[in-house]
Amino acid sequence: MSQDAIVTAAMIVIGDEILSGRTKDKNIGFVADYLTGLGIDLKEVRIVADEQDDIVEAVNALRSRYDYVFTSGGIGPTHDDITADSISAAFGVPCLPHPHAMKDMAAYYAERDMEFTEARQRMARTPEGAELIDNPISKAPGIRMENVYIMAGVPKIMQAMMDAIAPTLKSGTKMISQAIDCPFGEGSIGAGLGQIQETHDQTMIGSYPRYDDGRYTTQIVVRARQQALVEAAILDVMSMLEELSED
Amino acid sequence: MSQDAIVTAAMIVIGDEILSGRTKDKNIGFVADYLTGLGIDLKEVRIVADEQDDIVEAVNALRSRYDYVFTSGGIGPTHDDITADSISAAFGVPCLPHPHAMKDMAAYYAERDMEFTEARQRMARTPEGAELIDNPISKAPGIRMENVYIMAGVPKIMQAMMDAIAPTLKSGTKMISQAIDCPFGEGSIGAGLGQIQETHDQTMIGSYPRYDDGRYTTQIVVRARQQALVEAAILDVMSMLEELSED
Repeated sequence: MSQDAIVTAAMIVIGDEILSGRTKDKNIGFVADYLTGLGIDLKEVRIVADEQDDIVEAVNALRSRYDYVFTSGGIGPTHDDITADSISAAFGVPCLPHPHAMKDMAAYYAERDMEFTEARQRMARTPEGAELIDNPISKAPGIRMENVYIMAGVPKIMQAMMDAIAPTLKSGTKMISQAIDCPFGEGSIGAGLGQIQETHDQTMIGSYPRYDDGRYTTQIVVRARQQALVEAAILDVMSMLEELSED
Repeated sequence: MSQDAIVTAAMIVIGDEILSGRTKDKNIGFVADYLTGLGIDLKEVRIVADEQDDIVEAVNALRSRYDYVFTSGGIGPTHDDITADSISAAFGVPCLPHPHAMKDMAAYYAERDMEFTEARQRMARTPEGAELIDNPISKAPGIRMENVYIMAGVPKIMQAMMDAIAPTLKSGTKMISQAIDCPFGEGSIGAGLGQIQETHDQTMIGSYPRYDDGRYTTQIVVRARQQALVEAAILDVMSMLEELSED
């Protein structure tokens, strides 16, 4: 059973606009789905303000604890885009213009008859020693610094960067999950489900209440890294639901 | 200027289903908007798994740092609902049946000819010394333990609990914000905007790129706790944009 490969990750969403409610985050759900598809377990997400101390603390807390850390936001050309500086500070290295990024971006703007402004040059800065992540949409790159992947906040660009990163990540044994929609509220199934969880200790059994039109129903989700484990737990859940239906 | 009252908060979203991507969170955006409306600054959000150690760590890190901590999720009747136990552990107190909750819930289920099962009785447990938060929808209460407010994960119920809590919260001087949609990308306005930020150091100037149909536009957002501060910064932003339009 312990042949399962476990790979873990955390995500840091950087941006005052998410915390104020002005912008509704669309990246967390995307990254959660994406990593689950790769067999990587997203274990924690933090949303922090555009404040260097807050970013440094989150990055340093998470990069030692998980295999990968993904960030979104704060890598644009304006004064409130401080992710590259903050992650440099977290690693204790200077934030410097990256020669390849400078060259590629200069060419990109020249082709478009656009000025490679000082503001745009900010986007070519990385922590010293970092690698670039390709941005096929608007050129300004993402950044990999050791196990920290720094991505854009704009969802389309973040998603393209995730596609660029994915082939380089080690993936774990995928979690297999099966869901059962059940007509009972959690209060009716709670005790039985708890017993099933105890006898299936390598399987994660979750229950998610829904409340619509004045009544509760539940979605029961069984997850494990082996199909046989999922199936065995599902059988026990089905038996429990049949017994409840007969009552 | 320092007459402004600053009140801060953090939020903890508890649930494996958010981290796996199966459920897309709807509570963070709601709480962010709600607190902004009350003049409370949401400073940090964490999404953690249904693991006691993770919940304890997040609660203890945040409750000492901010005026309020709001949690959502994990207060249902099943084995994976461990928020009350975990927050009891964070405070170092036992998790016990709350007499008022037991009485109210027993009456609620009796009225409906439903059994007050052992699973449902789990929902009447609180950290010792806690107060209840009214749940007008399905009775099982939220919990206030000192400055930590424990709410349901089901959005409709979480929102009703937030309404119940709101009148009891101290509110800060509300942030006033004004947005300008600007046809330029951030690379064109970055330098000018940075200078404006420097001369308006009590105002927060954010810029949010949008990428649609192959081109960037920007929303510039000016925020401060005094209308006059917002207006002064907006004037400078408008001047900058006029100059750019003339180029």
